[in-house]
Amino acid sequence: MNEAETIRYHAAHNGRPAELDLLDQTKLPGTLTRLVCTTIDQTHDAIQRLVVRGAPAIGIAAAYGVTLTPVDAESNSSLPEAQARYRQTIDYLATSRPTAVNLFWALDRMRAIVDDFSGPVAELRERLVTEAIRIHDDDRQMCRSIGCHGATLLADCKSVMTHCNAGSLATSMWGTALAPMYHLHESGHSLEVFADETRPLLQGARLTAWELHQAGIPVTVCTDSMSGSLMRQGRVDAVIVGADRIAANGDVANKIGTYPLAVLAKYHNIPFYVAAPTNTFDSELESGDLIPIEQRSADEVSYPCGTDSPRQTPEGVAVVNPAFDVTPAELVTALITEKGVISEPDTAKVRAHLGL
Amino acid sequence: MNEAETIRYHAAHNGRPAELDLLDQTKLPGTLTRLVCTTIDQTHDAIQRLVVRGAPAIGIAAAYGVTLTPVDAESNSSLPEAQARYRQTIDYLATSRPTAVNLFWALDRMRAIVDDFSGPVAELRERLVTEAIRIHDDDRQMCRSIGCHGATLLADCKSVMTHCNAGSLATSMWGTALAPMYHLHESGHSLEVFADETRPLLQGARLTAWELHQAGIPVTVCTDSMSGSLMRQGRVDAVIVGADRIAANGDVANKIGTYPLAVLAKYHNIPFYVAAPTNTFDSELESGDLIPIEQRSADEVSYPCGTDSPRQTPEGVAVVNPAFDVTPAELVTALITEKGVISEPDTAKVRAHLGL
Repeated sequence: MNEAETIRYHAAHNGRPAELDLLDQTKLPGTLTRLVCTTIDQTHDAIQRLVVRGAPAIGIAAAYGVTLTPVDAESNSSLPEAQARYRQTIDYLATSRPTAVNLFWALDRMRAIVDDFSGPVAELRERLVTEAIRIHDDDRQMCRSIGCHGATLLADCKSVMTHCNAGSLATSMWGTALAPMYHLHESGHSLEVFADETRPLLQGARLTAWELHQAGIPVTVCTDSMSGSLMRQGRVDAVIVGADRIAANGDVANKIGTYPLAVLAKYHNIPFYVAAPTNTFDSELESGDLIPIEQRSADEVSYPCGTDSPRQTPEGVAVVNPAFDVTPAELVTALITEKGVISEPDTAKVRAHLGL
Repeated sequence: MNEAETIRYHAAHNGRPAELDLLDQTKLPGTLTRLVCTTIDQTHDAIQRLVVRGAPAIGIAAAYGVTLTPVDAESNSSLPEAQARYRQTIDYLATSRPTAVNLFWALDRMRAIVDDFSGPVAELRERLVTEAIRIHDDDRQMCRSIGCHGATLLADCKSVMTHCNAGSLATSMWGTALAPMYHLHESGHSLEVFADETRPLLQGARLTAWELHQAGIPVTVCTDSMSGSLMRQGRVDAVIVGADRIAANGDVANKIGTYPLAVLAKYHNIPFYVAAPTNTFDSELESGDLIPIEQRSADEVSYPCGTDSPRQTPEGVAVVNPAFDVTPAELVTALITEKGVISEPDTAKVRAHLGL
């Protein structure tokens, strides 16, 4: 069994409860340890604390989380009672984080199973487990397809820059932005990757660097502030990032620091790619300005190594900490999904791509 | 006596050695403590470890450092011997850091005193102390003048963004980039300041936030990656930074992360100002590409809270750590010196400003 697998699920068996078994990403790269959730509260907390993070991964984790709802199948609870409890869980898990739309997409799939079900309560749980596993499996296929489509765009590059972590740790495998790198690596073409450290939570330094290094793909960490001069020196052939939500017009919400990278890429005539599955699109939002941006605790900025380590901002000084920013579509060279590539995205192209 | 004064000097007295008494900036904002240097090795180390930092401040510290040369004035050492020892110190202190030209400028002033001197050895030391104090005093006047000139440019702003620390902690008082803020604050107009945290060494979060907060100027810390979205939201009226070296054509070397801010400011039509004394200009270098850029230890990136706190990059992964970047003159709205303002700087304007 792969100790580094992002998400594992063990179905209830012989009276043992079902387990959502997560790689604890808050502990990487120093410690490889797992956190096992058997309750929905633990699942909610794991998503909120970023034990599991990355838009696709939190969708998968939340879907499995729904199956941890304490509905005693052996008891006399009626189907309407069970459905009500599952819906309660779904509503609750939807409050864990606000920006990534994949969370709501996955929970909506689970809700549809609950709503459409008729039959014995025990079977409903099985149907939900099956659906969560399917969401997980679909994600693997999505990663492969994005890897394939993205690889055609990056085929002539020697080096790419990425931000945050949109790799295997953010998905079921391979990731979104990192999928083309894994794809090319498998075919013997190893890109050199610059991983922006991605303050405040250092997902680039801690996670992207870790997983690419494990895979044998050459990776160099830089601070977010170094990206500009690396581009100016001609050391970056393309930028590729993931997304937490993409509006109907192609505007992209992604980890804070993505937008300045897009502006810098434009200034240096470097292509800027966004890789994300189609379930990251929110076609109900006309533009990126409508995407809700999560504001997180100032402590994440003030304590770069966690609250056990020294505080780095003075007491009493204000700190802002938006977790995401919005990159307007005009700065995006192409969106890459499991279905293919949308070059110079706009509303019409996005709608056509999504079959709307 | 002000415990937070960046640099103090106590002349030799009654057999007690001279002391260069520095605020230890590596310990801020958590601890206000001072480091006393009585030897040139301690001075070299203090500059290298950034106990004292900021282009003007390291020039002042190095000038005082020269006076710590162990030349026994009571002994029989001849003037040529004493001069040789002082020159040795000057050469040695010049190796402490490579980028800020103020260091070499201050040491050149000290060297001129040594070279031009004739008379008793004891008097040479006094002349050197006098010159170091003069460099220190000149810097205070420079800060006031830059504050005054910069204030005219920022008079209509409500909020400004700055990077790293070019404040009182980087100079004798008030600083360069922060001087206009102090000037305006004294006249009752408090700008709101966004301080970029400035990875890897967090001079913005630790030092700029600390000194502005002490002075009662409202300051908010953001990570370097947040500057772009703050500009996009219209929350930044101007950017103002210091400089470590300015080439003959107006290209500016300053703390890593300055260049991307300049590109972002341009993209958002926000003025981008650089404040620095004329001794920061290196008229012998045609353009910024010729400025030597200090590469510092990877540990500064890997251990954001110092090596006593957890490592944040995986073992074995490459890290880059250039301490500075170069902003081309075409991105600079104006240079501000103690002599006035150079709008849209180029070689001709810079030469005229410097009287060359």
